[in-house]
Amino acid sequence: MTPHLSPEELKGLVRTVPDFPHPGIQFRDITTLIGHHQGMAASVHHLAAAARDAGADKIAGMEARGFIFGAAVAVQLGVGFVPVRKPGKLPIPTIGIDYALEYGTDRLEVDPGAIGAGENVVIVDDLIATGGTALASAELLRRAGAAVTHALFVIDLPDLGGADRLRQAGIAVTSLMAFEGE
Amino acid sequence: MTPHLSPEELKGLVRTVPDFPHPGIQFRDITTLIGHHQGMAASVHHLAAAARDAGADKIAGMEARGFIFGAAVAVQLGVGFVPVRKPGKLPIPTIGIDYALEYGTDRLEVDPGAIGAGENVVIVDDLIATGGTALASAELLRRAGAAVTHALFVIDLPDLGGADRLRQAGIAVTSLMAFEGE
Repeated sequence: MTPHLSPEELKGLVRTVPDFPHPGIQFRDITTLIGHHQGMAASVHHLAAAARDAGADKIAGMEARGFIFGAAVAVQLGVGFVPVRKPGKLPIPTIGIDYALEYGTDRLEVDPGAIGAGENVVIVDDLIATGGTALASAELLRRAGAAVTHALFVIDLPDLGGADRLRQAGIAVTSLMAFEGE
Repeated sequence: MTPHLSPEELKGLVRTVPDFPHPGIQFRDITTLIGHHQGMAASVHHLAAAARDAGADKIAGMEARGFIFGAAVAVQLGVGFVPVRKPGKLPIPTIGIDYALEYGTDRLEVDPGAIGAGENVVIVDDLIATGGTALASAELLRRAGAAVTHALFVIDLPDLGGADRLRQAGIAVTSLMAFEGE
């Protein structure tokens, strides 16, 4: 079997698209990473190793790109997957949380029956920027009874401070790569 | 290693929620299936076996629940994953297709650079009902240069005719379970 691509090699598979979705934003596009046969498998391999080290009982992933990595990590570990969804997607009963965006608010929902009391639920998403979505997800999963102590990302944008905010909330952060000052 | 749960056992893990999202609809909820440690892994195991038999070069999954199964299947096979996305999510250039819903229209987009000419792209989604989304995805992937000859679903609702419509479009359909006249 071919050795897995390193995180540095995976970083080379991420495409940077200038001025998307707004002028001045450098969009870090994972489409090229996950479309590559070794890129997809290696990303999940490295995330799964971190989730195993964290002692994950379940993996939670945020709609929609968090589903791509999170569910595959859950399969690698042989644990269940908890989708953190946009409003109105899950049948009731759900529990939800509203959280602030730069402009306005958004809402996330989970099925509380998907989580056993005290289960170690590890959060997986493609990217952490300001951390707003990840923090809201962690709070929601905790309200549902989970212990949330670790969050894993493919990409960190450290200039935006999200990983630091998660650590201040008691959540250890692992990311495969960072784009800093670029 | 524990043998994988059979498709019949997996069917027992799907929760039926009456009257969601509309009165009279029996919603087949995969949340309970994917939250179960053996349910998540076994579903992907069976789908991956079918994708391997189909000779998949890549796996395509439709936003959002198709990401849950599709990306994990791609990892099992060691092939790339192509997300079929809702409008405005992918940076340009994209190619898109508009298609009819019961009320109004919807649109799907892919990154044409994600598909090599003639690649065998196997579609994966959680459920097939009327088949409108799957047919539009197949047409879009074909316009991007893919050969689309197989589509895989966890759940088929055969009363709604989607699998038959796909077969008439030259696409072989495999599903792990069916809910018929229930």
